[in-house]
Amino acid sequence: MKPTDISVRTSERYEFVSITGEVRRAVREAGVEEGLCVISSTHTTAAVTVNEDYDRDVPRDLAAACEAFVGSLDVSFEHAEGNSDSHFLTSLFGSSQQLLVRGGELGLGRWQGIFLAEFDGPRQRTVRVAVF
Amino acid sequence: MKPTDISVRTSERYEFVSITGEVRRAVREAGVEEGLCVISSTHTTAAVTVNEDYDRDVPRDLAAACEAFVGSLDVSFEHAEGNSDSHFLTSLFGSSQQLLVRGGELGLGRWQGIFLAEFDGPRQRTVRVAVF
Amino acid sequence: MKPTDISVRTSERYEFVSITGEVRRAVREAGVEEGLCVISSTHTTAAVTVNEDYDRDVPRDLAAACEAFVGSLDVSFEHAEGNSDSHFLTSLFGSSQQLLVRGGELGLGRWQGIFLAEFDGPRQRTVRVAVF
Repeated sequence: MKPTDISVRTSERYEFVSITGEVRRAVREAGVEEGLCVISSTHTTAAVTVNEDYDRDVPRDLAAACEAFVGSLDVSFEHAEGNSDSHFLTSLFGSSQQLLVRGGELGLGRWQGIFLAEFDGPRQRTVRVAVF
Repeated sequence: MKPTDISVRTSERYEFVSITGEVRRAVREAGVEEGLCVISSTHTTAAVTVNEDYDRDVPRDLAAACEAFVGSLDVSFEHAEGNSDSHFLTSLFGSSQQLLVRGGELGLGRWQGIFLAEFDGPRQRTVRVAVF
Repeated sequence: MKPTDISVRTSERYEFVSITGEVRRAVREAGVEEGLCVISSTHTTAAVTVNEDYDRDVPRDLAAACEAFVGSLDVSFEHAEGNSDSHFLTSLFGSSQQLLVRGGELGLGRWQGIFLAEFDGPRQRTVRVAVF
């Protein structure tokens, strides 16, 4: 198990960036036939999520839903960096995801892909992929 | 590791269907004494979640909370299928869950069970169970 | 794989309690050099989440966001215990988290830590840590 780091450059405050191709490649290079792939964000204001990676409107709508959601919260935050909404979304979406590996390939459902979910961009992000 | 597929027929747009019995059975049949069980949705508008599987009001209240939540979002979605709320809820609940296996049995807390979380029903769904 | 149970005493209805130190210790004692650590709540009204464990305002803001969020939901719950909001939050945050183990140590990002997320406190809680 030697993890692969994927670098992602984001350009919006809330943005879902597909990393499906990079994760597929990391799984192939790991050389594991049947196993488990764990995909982790190393950050506290960016998550990893599995969703539709076909119609480009889906990740755009996810970002719009996040912005509408945190904008509607009637709450006063104390954290001085002003990104408590980003921390909140990160915990809701989750810091990591797991997918099966079958026949040496990432086991995605027909429409599924993997996204870095940016909640405090634009930033440079790192996603770690490990196969067991 | 040979996964077991569980078929679930849902009947509402938002619905939490218990699959605790089916997952317990798949774990017993896997024949692993101490390990990890991964339960995955193969869809992008249905999730898998762990919650109370005792009082039938809990899954009903979860579905009601989901409907109230997405109904309250002040956002215009672009995705032509009209189910961006379903994609959003799927990422929030998560596509997969993991549970320990101990003594050959699924390691659930006293009140815990496993649910297919339907966010765009009624539909036919598939949940994949793998034991490592 | 012999899990370690961590006991947590919470003091508020919504509260994020750091268990980073306890999980680090459990990983060291497991003696696994390269692997996967799974951290699970055994409850249905308390979750486990990864977030910033540095500025104490972050977990306080997460609790405030949870309270504001469920307080804003226009929904009538049926569950007689009156804690359906707690069940809802538990499924959104997730019952368990996974982190890589590298060189015998928990593989956290620079600001990441692990929290028991209490949504129906004050209570006595148990978090289970297993290393594979």
